[in-house]
Amino acid sequence: MKDSQFYTLGALADLIGARLRGDPSCLISGIGSLRGAKAGEISFLSNAEYRKDSPSLYRRDLALTKASAVILSSAEAPLCPVHLLVSENPRLSLAKAAKIFEKKESLIPGIHKSALIGEGCEIPDSVSIGANVVLGNRVILGENVVVAPGCIIGHDCVLGNNTTLMARVTLYDNVQMGKHCLIYSGAVIGGDGFGFAHQEGSWIRLPHLGSVVMGDQVEIGANTTIDRGFLEDTLLGDGVVIDNLVQVGHNVSIGAGTAIAGCVAIAGSAVIGKFCLVGGGSRIAGHVEIVDHVHLSGASMVTHSLRVPGVYGGFPAKPVDLWRKNIARFQNLDDMARRLRALENRVLNNARLVEDE
Amino acid sequence: MKDSQFYTLGALADLIGARLRGDPSCLISGIGSLRGAKAGEISFLSNAEYRKDSPSLYRRDLALTKASAVILSSAEAPLCPVHLLVSENPRLSLAKAAKIFEKKESLIPGIHKSALIGEGCEIPDSVSIGANVVLGNRVILGENVVVAPGCIIGHDCVLGNNTTLMARVTLYDNVQMGKHCLIYSGAVIGGDGFGFAHQEGSWIRLPHLGSVVMGDQVEIGANTTIDRGFLEDTLLGDGVVIDNLVQVGHNVSIGAGTAIAGCVAIAGSAVIGKFCLVGGGSRIAGHVEIVDHVHLSGASMVTHSLRVPGVYGGFPAKPVDLWRKNIARFQNLDDMARRLRALENRVLNNARLVEDE
Amino acid sequence: MKDSQFYTLGALADLIGARLRGDPSCLISGIGSLRGAKAGEISFLSNAEYRKDSPSLYRRDLALTKASAVILSSAEAPLCPVHLLVSENPRLSLAKAAKIFEKKESLIPGIHKSALIGEGCEIPDSVSIGANVVLGNRVILGENVVVAPGCIIGHDCVLGNNTTLMARVTLYDNVQMGKHCLIYSGAVIGGDGFGFAHQEGSWIRLPHLGSVVMGDQVEIGANTTIDRGFLEDTLLGDGVVIDNLVQVGHNVSIGAGTAIAGCVAIAGSAVIGKFCLVGGGSRIAGHVEIVDHVHLSGASMVTHSLRVPGVYGGFPAKPVDLWRKNIARFQNLDDMARRLRALENRVLNNARLVEDE
Repeated sequence: MKDSQFYTLGALADLIGARLRGDPSCLISGIGSLRGAKAGEISFLSNAEYRKDSPSLYRRDLALTKASAVILSSAEAPLCPVHLLVSENPRLSLAKAAKIFEKKESLIPGIHKSALIGEGCEIPDSVSIGANVVLGNRVILGENVVVAPGCIIGHDCVLGNNTTLMARVTLYDNVQMGKHCLIYSGAVIGGDGFGFAHQEGSWIRLPHLGSVVMGDQVEIGANTTIDRGFLEDTLLGDGVVIDNLVQVGHNVSIGAGTAIAGCVAIAGSAVIGKFCLVGGGSRIAGHVEIVDHVHLSGASMVTHSLRVPGVYGGFPAKPVDLWRKNIARFQNLDDMARRLRALENRVLNNARLVEDE
Repeated sequence: MKDSQFYTLGALADLIGARLRGDPSCLISGIGSLRGAKAGEISFLSNAEYRKDSPSLYRRDLALTKASAVILSSAEAPLCPVHLLVSENPRLSLAKAAKIFEKKESLIPGIHKSALIGEGCEIPDSVSIGANVVLGNRVILGENVVVAPGCIIGHDCVLGNNTTLMARVTLYDNVQMGKHCLIYSGAVIGGDGFGFAHQEGSWIRLPHLGSVVMGDQVEIGANTTIDRGFLEDTLLGDGVVIDNLVQVGHNVSIGAGTAIAGCVAIAGSAVIGKFCLVGGGSRIAGHVEIVDHVHLSGASMVTHSLRVPGVYGGFPAKPVDLWRKNIARFQNLDDMARRLRALENRVLNNARLVEDE
Repeated sequence: MKDSQFYTLGALADLIGARLRGDPSCLISGIGSLRGAKAGEISFLSNAEYRKDSPSLYRRDLALTKASAVILSSAEAPLCPVHLLVSENPRLSLAKAAKIFEKKESLIPGIHKSALIGEGCEIPDSVSIGANVVLGNRVILGENVVVAPGCIIGHDCVLGNNTTLMARVTLYDNVQMGKHCLIYSGAVIGGDGFGFAHQEGSWIRLPHLGSVVMGDQVEIGANTTIDRGFLEDTLLGDGVVIDNLVQVGHNVSIGAGTAIAGCVAIAGSAVIGKFCLVGGGSRIAGHVEIVDHVHLSGASMVTHSLRVPGVYGGFPAKPVDLWRKNIARFQNLDDMARRLRALENRVLNNARLVEDE
């Protein structure tokens, strides 16, 4: 573990890309939330964190914070009672600050004696391979690759420079990963897709000859599963980030920069564009196409292709304003049904009265 | 494996906290369902198991059971044709009876020779550490802790007395667990949360400096994932029980005694109160607050804070009576739409007739 | 890896059970999609793959393919511009062709030196046991069983002939598997079900004395979890196939030939019939019964027993035509509500006018 280190606010401002308004010699040794930070720590103001609360709440937290300085945007600067770290991208400055104060054991490169390495692998000296790792044949690892304990890597896999597999990741044969990728524990990449032929009442699985190919800076969450393609590859573009417990079916293609939150299910051959956001717990049917810049709110169900960028939600997924209007009306559906019946009775009775006249 | 053991009904009644009405010398060697139990075994009557069936069904099963005795409440006693074990808490008596007849290999304390132990760990003699376990540095294990084969435990983790990790659990650095906790295989505890900053079109993950802190008697199901907090900790109170394949996001707080069924997704910073029940497949949005004693029916979607105890259901989650009424009307929505159109035509035609007169 | 092998079309036709219309001496060395195949490869036409697209699309892809031959049904034969492999079951022929061109390392039978084998196990010479595998006591393995690296198998498990556990599968004690089963990485079979008694505000887990029993040709996807039964067994019939990240609760019974897609949650004691199809992301409540030949569309929520074969969908699951009609009307619910209000105003005003007269 790194010992606590001290930084002056002046130095910190430079490191995190912020402008300091306050005392550059103030010493900082950590980072905390507005409510949790102590003197000698910095904090941050993130509207996102307060989205669900009243706006007055974060003003109060800001007014009462014991942090020595706060990272914020220039718009929020006037509210701040302590030293300011004004950033055009406060969240990025925050990420940099958190990185500075993160305490991680440094890894020593090398291959643990319990690791099993197949034939014909390429493993630079800068690589770290942990205990009980099993590598297949002809695996190619880039510079500074980290394979944490318990990972199992199939034959012919390729991991680009600076890619990290955390403990207990499984790659099937021939998975191709770019640079700076990060896979969390329990993820299973490259299993066969769920595709079958029928033979006399039995399911015969289609052997999957494609693989999983991902670009650079792809991140995949814990216990997520990504199936290999049938004849072509399952594709994850550069900078795709996927949360925990997500299922990505065979032959799915996900465009660069798309973020997929937890517990999403993506059925086979779905095509998702670039810079999409998929809310947690959403389902995407097989063979649909979603264009670039689509945002799906949580627990959406996509049953048809979405061909226009925008925000969608609901079951089935529709433009989110339409979904919200309709789901609001749904809360009164019982009332609507009663009123419709009453109206029918009235009109029918009127009609009878008219006929009776 | 334990050999089959015999207990007299009299002894069993004492062991499981029930009053015997019947022959105390009757010998019992096992336990089974009403339909499956044989002579010499005990069984039980649980309304819960028959909830979805007609009430006549369990009466028939009870009447026909071959069990030598049945655990039940005093209310159900008159129906029972065999020896009775009357309990004020039949389900608890059942749990105790099942424990008595469970056949488990006894574990021998000690550290398997293939296990890898980091520096500065505290490991009492009563601990059992299985094959291929990897422990980081400064891990502290309480008395009688069990770490089954294939577990990987990060640096600075703490496990309280009598806590068990089943095979192939992963703990990231600094996870804190209380006493008598139980984690099933494949669970991943303490991975970074899904929080990012944007930089020129790329996602930059926020380093997560918080951890996961759980109280005593916490149980976590197979392949469940629980993310560490960003600056503060993800919190699971005493007695929280979580089923399989659940996702708990960063900075979530779950109050004591809350039970969460399978395949639930809880987004970041959600706060769930004490003694809540969350039905299987539910989704809980980020940053919402749910007060104590909220019950969510299966596949609920919580989009807003629930500030009043009670039973909720649906998408979005509403008081379950309201949800049930509305979803019942939904089954006739097509009919309603037709009737509305017909009524419009009639009223419009009437109006025209009136105007034409 | 197998070297590329060449087959004549004539030989291939025999191997995959198709009738050749074209040149039997044409040499084939691989298989690809209509768009991806090169000369010297075969391809296939699958309506399923084109379901979501316009029918004209696959005609165009077929017309433009560079494949040397295409597997298709006799109905589609007239459209094909290249050699034909006409099959009565094109998908089965495709599966056989993919198998022929699959390049897999052959496994060498034997027990890896790092594997740990319990006492009293039965392991034929034809078995392959990989690195770091841990077998409990009295495990019985059939002929040609494969246990890939990192698997952990509890005491008293039985695996039938030709069954394969891929890397990092966990079986708890006493799981019984038939012949020709296939389990993907990260699956956890036989953990205790999520059943508890209450004792003074604490949850006491019911010890689960049943197990998981599966027939022949069962396939289970990556990171799927299947809980053991409480007193009786959780049952998977012959030929049941289950995708990734599925939760199967305690005492569930799934009939022969049923297929369950990814991210499905099946609560305890549900009974699912034979030859059912369960769409991805569906939820099935506890204790419900679903008869044979029920098809559930994706993201269905089954809250009550389904006693008639057919296609169901929605929340709660209803006959899919009814669900589709109603969900279509739902898209106009806001409009309906406005029209109902307008009609009320009109009728009410008319009534007032009449009263005023």
